[in-house]
Amino acid sequence: MSTTSRRPIYLDCDTGIDDSLALAYLLASPEIELVGVGTVCGNTSATQAARNTLDLLALAGRHDIPVAVGATDWLTRPFDGGVPQIHGPNGIGGIQLHPSGAAPADEAAAELLIRLSHEYAGRLQVVTVGPLTNIALALTTDPTLVDRVASVTTMGGAALVPGNVTAVAEANVWNDPEAAQHVIAAHWDVTLVPLDVTLENTLAEKDRRQLLQSADPLARSLGEMLDFYFDFYLSFYGRRGCALHDPLAAAIAVGGIRAATAPAVPAQIDTTHGPGRGQTVLDLREQRHGPVDHPGCRTRVVLATDRPLGPHLVQRLTSPIATLA
Amino acid sequence: MSTTSRRPIYLDCDTGIDDSLALAYLLASPEIELVGVGTVCGNTSATQAARNTLDLLALAGRHDIPVAVGATDWLTRPFDGGVPQIHGPNGIGGIQLHPSGAAPADEAAAELLIRLSHEYAGRLQVVTVGPLTNIALALTTDPTLVDRVASVTTMGGAALVPGNVTAVAEANVWNDPEAAQHVIAAHWDVTLVPLDVTLENTLAEKDRRQLLQSADPLARSLGEMLDFYFDFYLSFYGRRGCALHDPLAAAIAVGGIRAATAPAVPAQIDTTHGPGRGQTVLDLREQRHGPVDHPGCRTRVVLATDRPLGPHLVQRLTSPIATLA
Repeated sequence: MSTTSRRPIYLDCDTGIDDSLALAYLLASPEIELVGVGTVCGNTSATQAARNTLDLLALAGRHDIPVAVGATDWLTRPFDGGVPQIHGPNGIGGIQLHPSGAAPADEAAAELLIRLSHEYAGRLQVVTVGPLTNIALALTTDPTLVDRVASVTTMGGAALVPGNVTAVAEANVWNDPEAAQHVIAAHWDVTLVPLDVTLENTLAEKDRRQLLQSADPLARSLGEMLDFYFDFYLSFYGRRGCALHDPLAAAIAVGGIRAATAPAVPAQIDTTHGPGRGQTVLDLREQRHGPVDHPGCRTRVVLATDRPLGPHLVQRLTSPIATLA
Repeated sequence: MSTTSRRPIYLDCDTGIDDSLALAYLLASPEIELVGVGTVCGNTSATQAARNTLDLLALAGRHDIPVAVGATDWLTRPFDGGVPQIHGPNGIGGIQLHPSGAAPADEAAAELLIRLSHEYAGRLQVVTVGPLTNIALALTTDPTLVDRVASVTTMGGAALVPGNVTAVAEANVWNDPEAAQHVIAAHWDVTLVPLDVTLENTLAEKDRRQLLQSADPLARSLGEMLDFYFDFYLSFYGRRGCALHDPLAAAIAVGGIRAATAPAVPAQIDTTHGPGRGQTVLDLREQRHGPVDHPGCRTRVVLATDRPLGPHLVQRLTSPIATLA
């Protein structure tokens, strides 16, 4: 049993440029301790995501954090090659990181999660920023997982804004709707961080310059890989910059950013093969006059945050953790 | 061949309190001529809707307008009894209108529509404010209908707001998703008037008083039936009043209210039996920086109007048409 006083977090990711931001944010957050990382196919392959994660951890001098490769395919669909047009050919914008030399853990991501849930029973927070395949596999392997996990914070879904893969589906949910449905139907507290808020939190070129000028090598690498990501978002925002999907979920899990509006509502993933496949169907009919929790619902959806993530994120990424702790 | 210089309109409705407002608005609009009405089950039965329509037309002295009873069930589901809690036991808030004495036309609504499409070929505008069953039946009976109809304006759908029957489904589409899909997949110009705009256009108690004080008996009856409708909307708006769903579609078809934002976008109805059933799935991903028409798309969705409907509606309903024409 670990005795860390920091809140333990397991991160599940498909690293990914904004996943890299989320990872670095967690490493820079004194409130929590990152105790393990699992990777899943999504932005890139699960294997490449693990490679990227290990290299980023090495840049931060954190060889101690286990990284486990997870699902190399989704529950009902083989991995499709990811989105190199968004995250670059290697998931991190094509930049070359110094190879860490460390190997992935000798267990699958779902096994790592279950193991950590015992080690930090009742305290472990799960943060997911990729498809929910590993979490669904862990729940299938050990349904008692829900009793040992304190909370799940998930970047996923689109509540009252269009999707980013189909008209109504957000990428993480779209890639594995059956897994997402398994996770939100389980008896634990899930906080969804959907496109509604992640698209409204951005970095701009000035932020990227700050990262590039940092004394911290991890921050500088993030600044470099954002170059590619900013190109992709040019047509979306009409200027160079990017959405902060994954780091917003991380920041909300940490508490660095608070959800100003996050009602607990009926939630269901569309797992049909109709035009709504992959949609996160949230019943927001009662929310017209302000947030109203539905009794018995354990899925919260973040619809507003207390402040913009951008400045807070850059501040954390460019400040050594020693000065914050 | 009729030689009216006014634009001919066929109205399909499930009368209904806001249907009654739409009907009265059309009767009061000098730009158009209401040449026929078909009824469908929805708010109330198709038979009751025809009864209400005939009585309302009699109040306006318009025994000349044919009213045809249409579908008494939806394409894949029997009529469920309607929504007496919203529109009253008889569809018009429980008020008693003087019985018109006129009988419904000796043809079904779909037949009336097809007949009028020949009589006013190329000019006929179709306005629908109920489930799309009759229109789908007419299209199945005569697919060439699309070539003789100038436009279809439909109250239906929920684009970026919650539905009003399920989390994502609006009532008219929910009641007959298969019919709605048939209508928007046909090769004609459809303008959808969804909850996004109809909920933002309202009447208040002061408007109802103006109707009650009108010299026009139809306006007074509308004021009376709105009493029931206002009760229903109390919990929704937090004050007595009502949404102007159906009259907004009528006003947009007439041109009394103009769509300020109405992009032509890919549209599909969810006809699965999953959580998205009845959703009007509109691809609005390209609309972030202002309205963009998708090439080849003939379904427009109204997302903003040029001015509020309320004052314009009350003005028309309380002014004899002779003074406007």
